[in-house]
Amino acid sequence: MKKLGRVYLVGAGPGDPDLLTVKAARIISKADVVVFDRLVSAEILALVPKTTRMIPVGKAPKCHPLPQREINRILIHEAAEGRTVARLKGGDPFIFGRGSEEARALAAAGLCVENVPGITAAQGCSATTGVPLTHRGLATGVRYVTGHCRHDRPLDLDWEGLADPDTTLVIYMGAANIAQIASRLADSGLTPKTPVLAVNNATTPSERHLVSDLATIAKDAAAAEFSGPVLFIVGRVVHLYAAVPQCTLPTCFVPFPAHQVDAHV
Amino acid sequence: MKKLGRVYLVGAGPGDPDLLTVKAARIISKADVVVFDRLVSAEILALVPKTTRMIPVGKAPKCHPLPQREINRILIHEAAEGRTVARLKGGDPFIFGRGSEEARALAAAGLCVENVPGITAAQGCSATTGVPLTHRGLATGVRYVTGHCRHDRPLDLDWEGLADPDTTLVIYMGAANIAQIASRLADSGLTPKTPVLAVNNATTPSERHLVSDLATIAKDAAAAEFSGPVLFIVGRVVHLYAAVPQCTLPTCFVPFPAHQVDAHV
Repeated sequence: MKKLGRVYLVGAGPGDPDLLTVKAARIISKADVVVFDRLVSAEILALVPKTTRMIPVGKAPKCHPLPQREINRILIHEAAEGRTVARLKGGDPFIFGRGSEEARALAAAGLCVENVPGITAAQGCSATTGVPLTHRGLATGVRYVTGHCRHDRPLDLDWEGLADPDTTLVIYMGAANIAQIASRLADSGLTPKTPVLAVNNATTPSERHLVSDLATIAKDAAAAEFSGPVLFIVGRVVHLYAAVPQCTLPTCFVPFPAHQVDAHV
Repeated sequence: MKKLGRVYLVGAGPGDPDLLTVKAARIISKADVVVFDRLVSAEILALVPKTTRMIPVGKAPKCHPLPQREINRILIHEAAEGRTVARLKGGDPFIFGRGSEEARALAAAGLCVENVPGITAAQGCSATTGVPLTHRGLATGVRYVTGHCRHDRPLDLDWEGLADPDTTLVIYMGAANIAQIASRLADSGLTPKTPVLAVNNATTPSERHLVSDLATIAKDAAAAEFSGPVLFIVGRVVHLYAAVPQCTLPTCFVPFPAHQVDAHV
């Protein structure tokens, strides 16, 4: 009987290879096969030994996606052949990563899965900008939502619940819909002056920041012409941006005079 | 003029040293001084070279706490003396870690701070239990709140907003107040059958799991007599618990017949 392989569902973090976990770095270096998404950075892929087989399954927006079923088939096939597979996903596999869909498909095929968490984009942005996700007196909790919707369907979010001034709101994949998101949040009770931080290509050499507010973020973000992933952090914690100078900030580029940031704390 | 040192605010993750970031592991190995909390695991502290000075500033519940001001003073003093300081915190410094308070104090003293994110407990629990924080059809987002309140004041949370069946709710530091939390969530609209997963000492050799529901979690958790940190994950994603067998699960201990878990997916 052939020995089955094993699949590691590995979070690759936000981009900086230094933010991989020790475990993720070891798995990447030892796997027989690396199956990777578009959002895994080139710097991380460069850590994979040259002799390791690499299978890209990522998709660019509006390009033909590799269906999830086909990705599952590849993972099952490779593991069934006895190989050790590193399934590398941007961020954390279990936060907007569809990792659990792949884990279920693998388990249904009788295969072994091991999960390795990764630093999610919100944490990467928080660390490089110095904007905390929670802070006493400013945010008692934090919430992650996706601003992306399938097949151009309208966003179906609980706007009243999201418009909570005491919670930091982090919006993943929201660049295309930020105008609608900002206006719905303001309509639902957040003051239009609620500060918003947009972080583009967080933790990579091309990281850019934009500080704005709910009233103007859509216009400001459009004018910034971001290329690559953008994360939006909405809430009072953004008042702390730049209050703490970071020593190793990448070149920051705020394309507009940043709105005056009052230290409300 | 004396050269100033630098403080790294480092997330130590949930406990397993393998879940440190590569950057955190390197900083720990090279710092002159390590200032650490109670929640940093012994296995991680064992990675610190024997010649490095260790300063514990953690506090046990209901014991005399080292005031935040005193911790700030120690950090400022060490860095002002020219030393490289690793300020190690459990989880992520910017998620319920008060890292930003320390960062502000250091910046106000003219000192250099660099933030290093860490895997937060919710992610550690998610990886070891196989319960995702988001999953299509079960949870469109995830939310972290703290169930702890200062000086035994009543919990002041937006219960209506928290009782959202489409969002995974993760409760940090909620063990003491879980009865109140569960009953308020049920009163605010979540069905009492909403599944709840309690994870104790996540990612450590003494990790334990308990699957229950809103109606019975308080009784079940009390009977389990957990020792050490407990994280609660509330929401439909908990239906996926055990649907995916983990290969490297630590010894699981469910002290009660786990409530029947229907695969609602």
